[in-house]
Order: sequence, then C-alpha cells, then structure tokens
Amino acid sequence: MIRLSVFYPVTEGATFDHDYYKDKHVPLAVKAWGLSGAEIDKGVDGPYVAAVHFTFDSLEAMGAAMASEGTGEVMADVANYTSITPVLQTSEVVA
Amino acid sequence: MIRLSVFYPVTEGATFDHDYYKDKHVPLAVKAWGLSGAEIDKGVDGPYVAAVHFTFDSLEAMGAAMASEGTGEVMADVANYTSITPVLQTSEVVA
Repeated sequence: MIRLSVFYPVTEGATFDHDYYKDKHVPLAVKAWGLSGAEIDKGVDGPYVAAVHFTFDSLEAMGAAMASEGTGEVMADVANYTSITPVLQTSEVVA
Repeated sequence: MIRLSVFYPVTEGATFDHDYYKDKHVPLAVKAWGLSGAEIDKGVDGPYVAAVHFTFDSLEAMGAAMASEGTGEVMADVANYTSITPVLQTSEVVA
C-alpha cells in the first residue's frame, strides 16, 4: 500500500481553516480520487499545523488519481482554507 | 485519538536500516508503550526516508507512555539503525 501524506508546516502569519479542511476539502479530494476515506491530523505539537494521509493500492493507482480530471479542482480549493504551501510525502506502508 | 508521528528527514551521508527498524525497533517501542501496533512508512518520494505513526487514546496516555521506564531503551536503540535525528509531531486525529 502507498501512503500519500500532505503536511502543512507551521508558518508565521499563515492561516489554516481546520473545519473547512475536514468538512469540505478532504471530502472533495476523497471523492475526486475515488477513495474510501482519509486520515486527518490537527497538529498539537511539532512542525505541522495539519496533515492528511491518503492510501492507494499502488504507485500506479496514486499516479492515475493525481492525473484524473478532479485533481485541478482539489488543488484550486487549497486557497480556500490556507495560505501555507503544503509538503508532500509518498511512502510505502511496510507494516 | 492522538497520533505521534516520528519522521526521519532525508539527510546527506546518513544511513537508515529499514529492516532493523521494522523488525526490531518499532516492535520494541510498541511493547514498551503497551500499544497494539504501529504504522511504518518507507519513503518513496519526499522529505522523509522513513516514518512511524503510533496512536494513543489521549495526550495523557501518550505522556504516560513516554514517561514509562521502557522509553529509555527505545531511545538508546535509535543508534542501532540510523544516524538521522528524528522529527516528532503530535496530532489529534480528527477524521
């Protein structure tokens, strides 16, 4: 399984709307990419104010999702909840 | 639920033994902290070479685990698989 994690670094002067993220943005991404769900983190302590973790069956499945037509709408929606530039991490879930 | 994520940044000249991490270190931490398991990531693309995600029922439960006597052994074991200084993130799992 492949995990795509999106991290939002704590950034001086930046905003992050956790409610919009949970209620609107992540559901939009889940629908666009045909996923069953996602795990959302609200930062308590550490370098990130928020994160989300999506899982895909394979790198190919993730690539197909990213290339799908819904991705543009997902990306365009980022400006609706934050001014932070996200950091992406792709990993193989090994256990 | 609380997620404690430990990230290992890609570091020039550093080493990381993924097998030792999966087979020895993470099980040691899981046992020390009385958890049912953990999710291990092997980096494919992005800022981290590896990560692990532990979940706790509450911040208090996480604090109690960190303060338990097994934590010292867990920390001392890090040198056995990597020379990378890990980054810790504590988050509330919101969905």
